[in-house]
Amino acid sequence: MPDTAVLLIDCPDQRGIVAAVSEFLYRLGANILHADQHQDGELQLFFMRVEWDLSDFTLPLEQFPAAFADIASRFAMKWRLELSTVRPRLALFVSKYDHCLADLLYRWHAGELRCDVAAVVGNHPDAEPLAQFYHVPFHHVPVDAAGGGRAKAEAETRELGLLRRERVDLVVLARYMQVLSPRFVSEYPQRIINVHHSFLPAFVGAKPYHQAFERGVKLIGATSHYVTAELDDGPIIEQATTRISHRDQLNDLIQKGRELEKQVLSRAVRWHVEHRILVYGKKTVIFD
Amino acid sequence: MPDTAVLLIDCPDQRGIVAAVSEFLYRLGANILHADQHQDGELQLFFMRVEWDLSDFTLPLEQFPAAFADIASRFAMKWRLELSTVRPRLALFVSKYDHCLADLLYRWHAGELRCDVAAVVGNHPDAEPLAQFYHVPFHHVPVDAAGGGRAKAEAETRELGLLRRERVDLVVLARYMQVLSPRFVSEYPQRIINVHHSFLPAFVGAKPYHQAFERGVKLIGATSHYVTAELDDGPIIEQATTRISHRDQLNDLIQKGRELEKQVLSRAVRWHVEHRILVYGKKTVIFD
Amino acid sequence: MPDTAVLLIDCPDQRGIVAAVSEFLYRLGANILHADQHQDGELQLFFMRVEWDLSDFTLPLEQFPAAFADIASRFAMKWRLELSTVRPRLALFVSKYDHCLADLLYRWHAGELRCDVAAVVGNHPDAEPLAQFYHVPFHHVPVDAAGGGRAKAEAETRELGLLRRERVDLVVLARYMQVLSPRFVSEYPQRIINVHHSFLPAFVGAKPYHQAFERGVKLIGATSHYVTAELDDGPIIEQATTRISHRDQLNDLIQKGRELEKQVLSRAVRWHVEHRILVYGKKTVIFD
Amino acid sequence: MPDTAVLLIDCPDQRGIVAAVSEFLYRLGANILHADQHQDGELQLFFMRVEWDLSDFTLPLEQFPAAFADIASRFAMKWRLELSTVRPRLALFVSKYDHCLADLLYRWHAGELRCDVAAVVGNHPDAEPLAQFYHVPFHHVPVDAAGGGRAKAEAETRELGLLRRERVDLVVLARYMQVLSPRFVSEYPQRIINVHHSFLPAFVGAKPYHQAFERGVKLIGATSHYVTAELDDGPIIEQATTRISHRDQLNDLIQKGRELEKQVLSRAVRWHVEHRILVYGKKTVIFD
Repeated sequence: MPDTAVLLIDCPDQRGIVAAVSEFLYRLGANILHADQHQDGELQLFFMRVEWDLSDFTLPLEQFPAAFADIASRFAMKWRLELSTVRPRLALFVSKYDHCLADLLYRWHAGELRCDVAAVVGNHPDAEPLAQFYHVPFHHVPVDAAGGGRAKAEAETRELGLLRRERVDLVVLARYMQVLSPRFVSEYPQRIINVHHSFLPAFVGAKPYHQAFERGVKLIGATSHYVTAELDDGPIIEQATTRISHRDQLNDLIQKGRELEKQVLSRAVRWHVEHRILVYGKKTVIFD
Repeated sequence: MPDTAVLLIDCPDQRGIVAAVSEFLYRLGANILHADQHQDGELQLFFMRVEWDLSDFTLPLEQFPAAFADIASRFAMKWRLELSTVRPRLALFVSKYDHCLADLLYRWHAGELRCDVAAVVGNHPDAEPLAQFYHVPFHHVPVDAAGGGRAKAEAETRELGLLRRERVDLVVLARYMQVLSPRFVSEYPQRIINVHHSFLPAFVGAKPYHQAFERGVKLIGATSHYVTAELDDGPIIEQATTRISHRDQLNDLIQKGRELEKQVLSRAVRWHVEHRILVYGKKTVIFD
Repeated sequence: MPDTAVLLIDCPDQRGIVAAVSEFLYRLGANILHADQHQDGELQLFFMRVEWDLSDFTLPLEQFPAAFADIASRFAMKWRLELSTVRPRLALFVSKYDHCLADLLYRWHAGELRCDVAAVVGNHPDAEPLAQFYHVPFHHVPVDAAGGGRAKAEAETRELGLLRRERVDLVVLARYMQVLSPRFVSEYPQRIINVHHSFLPAFVGAKPYHQAFERGVKLIGATSHYVTAELDDGPIIEQATTRISHRDQLNDLIQKGRELEKQVLSRAVRWHVEHRILVYGKKTVIFD
Repeated sequence: MPDTAVLLIDCPDQRGIVAAVSEFLYRLGANILHADQHQDGELQLFFMRVEWDLSDFTLPLEQFPAAFADIASRFAMKWRLELSTVRPRLALFVSKYDHCLADLLYRWHAGELRCDVAAVVGNHPDAEPLAQFYHVPFHHVPVDAAGGGRAKAEAETRELGLLRRERVDLVVLARYMQVLSPRFVSEYPQRIINVHHSFLPAFVGAKPYHQAFERGVKLIGATSHYVTAELDDGPIIEQATTRISHRDQLNDLIQKGRELEKQVLSRAVRWHVEHRILVYGKKTVIFD
């Protein structure tokens, strides 16, 4: 695959945006591979993602901001440029259930995820062999429940230090059962992805499969979302459901749910590292 | 199709139930067409549905209760016998949106639903031509919003009178936008089916598509359930979801949701009139 | 909704197409509502659909071809312009099974399909009352099986005459069980939509549910496609599948399949009348 | 979990079978956990699966055949008894694509599959590290394409020897790209499971994703089935489909298809090792 650039734009909706951007790229020799846009009619917002092959692109990339400044200011754009040569660096957090971790590591190893996995972090040591098999450093950061808020704050301080040292761009909570503090979350805005094992907003909080079982639903679900300060309330990236019946006991729900969790989390990570997600308010635009 | 009988059983789980029931039916010449059972391991409950061809059945059906009494008392069964010759009589309630009504009437007419449709009841007059096309009496029972609780109580009194006169067995709320009073509900326990246009328990109450749109979910759903005194909280019969994306505006959600509503409501009605549903607590067993 | 125009473009892939088209529309005051494009990397083809609000469009539409001629010839475009004020005229063909017909007529009546239904044509008289309920002229054109090819040719001649008189743009075969002759098909290229009750290319030809039942598949499907001279081989527009099990007898397949048939046919018709489909070779691009 | 027994029955449909079997088990103290039966109305066949807790079962299992002989002969039953204490032994065959292998090994390791994995066999050496990670012996049995039929026959002889030595009960072709000879297949009737990467019977044979891409389908599929002498024609165990669009290039089909392959193969293996599958003719009954 050739080296590519992705331009992501978010601005008030006005006429002429596509004309201006495509004319700009055309003059610079961009060979556009994918272009997609979205208008939110209600909020009068415009979103765009353009990906182009850099082979014949005549503008040195460090000059892009200056060259694009006119258009950006004319349309009051928020924008960013992402390069395929700069692979996002991920940290995968896990507790005891390792199906999402195993799934992500396999996909990464198989080339499905364009990123580097810089670290696996576990509050239990169980996932170490799996991380080692994929040659990813494993960090055991226990959180002493008896230690209360202080133990947790210390663990988070260790984790944040590790993320900084490893220059991590995206934290993936792959069934990590600790709730992150607002301090932690605020350091990685729209850069922490969680998987919640229910069809949000149904069954927020602890033990969603138990809640679903008690309520007698006929479908169970899973949701991947960006983490915000409020629990299970961040912008939803992907959701999936699967059918259950009265024959399914709690353990069946848990087992069937695993498939959904792997699906929605791996898609969210893939879309994030391919720069296909734009967040606005509590919603996401997915340019897939 | 031959005349058939359906026996539905609900009792504490113990050994020997299937042996006793199947031996009983075998001795009486029952040609069993379908048999299904379910054990709830947690609550130690047993549920069974047996359907047999009555052609060679040697017991006059009026003697069934006496003949079955020994087994029923030995296992502390709640049971009922339903006959294919006795078609349940339905009343379909509707407001302005008539897609579920049109769908149910078509299916009934096409022979998919083994029931009689005794009446269509609308708080608006719009559905009258549709009812007439299918030769079903239409009853316009307006509910004067300005009239408050009293107007509503009077409307319900009229409706209950109608249901009694027409010997209605099942009330189907096919996008009927009035909340029924506890008095009304208590007269038809487990005999009122509603369709709610969300994936319950998410988005209870009014305007669920608006709620879903605001929350930015990636799937929308619909739920059919028995009506209980508490709003949108009755035992769930069927649910379905469909994918939406950021491209879908509120109107798209409403349009896509209609497909789900038709699906989950028509299945619920079919299962009910074929005596395939057993309710226990807040859950349903569906012997489909 | 405002009056809109849809421009559909099909040309060799080159740089600068989007820039040229969007600049052209921008200068003429087009308020773009939706724009979507597709590149077929393998065949080096480019497809585009743009829809805009005509309120502020400064070019009289009759001058559009002349104004657009430069761009069109520069990029060797095949293109067409469709206006929301010009509603496509449909003829619905049916035999005995009327579930697709009933579904399409209801959706049309409910405003889901932006078209006029000019005629219902049946080789059996059964669908007449349904057509009348929706105030659509019904034409009974029997095809005498004993009459062989000649009887069939005469029936087609009558049908073609009717289609011309009624200025029909699209023929929808809503479970019409006669195979159309190449002569008929050639008069309406990419303007006849059929629903086949299997997941094509599996189970081509007659009695696909029987074939599926014999083969023991675990999913059944339905396919909507444009009709070409070769049976069940035209460009596929939409497909859907649903789960079956060993419990499902042939009749269950037929009943479950109906839901799929309604889905895939109604979507195909909606996409066609909204000018969302581009055909190339045996494939379709669906700008939904 | 307690030790359990599973009784699988296949016989002509007659009255009294359930009564006889359940009475028999009841007298022997069987605590039935699951019971399910199926009647094929067309072929007049009866199938049954009963699973019971052995804790209070009073009959020594070695006496089961003698004790059950009367019932078995009265109803002309084919039957077998499977014990949870006897875990089926599997050999997993793989070529280069290892996603199904990795998925099966993970599920086995996580306790989702009640079996022993006795060997991984590859015609390429690539999967060896993965097998080692799960502590499963890896056997590299190359098939020299230049060697023709003779090389292939020698490889199969080696494989069959290995299967015998390892007392393998079930061979799973986890994207194994060699076609097995009739000789090999005849040694493991209904004991070789393959995954084919299409929705059979569409796209039989080589390169099904290429075929699907060329045909322009809107869904792709995968199928798990028992292997018979005729290619891709054995009894289907499970199928799944997923939506694709014109945006999906061949590589996208391959990637999306992997998810389906993992699903349908892992379910087939689970059902097989839990003795939930009965084969008759070209069909399967799945007691899930």
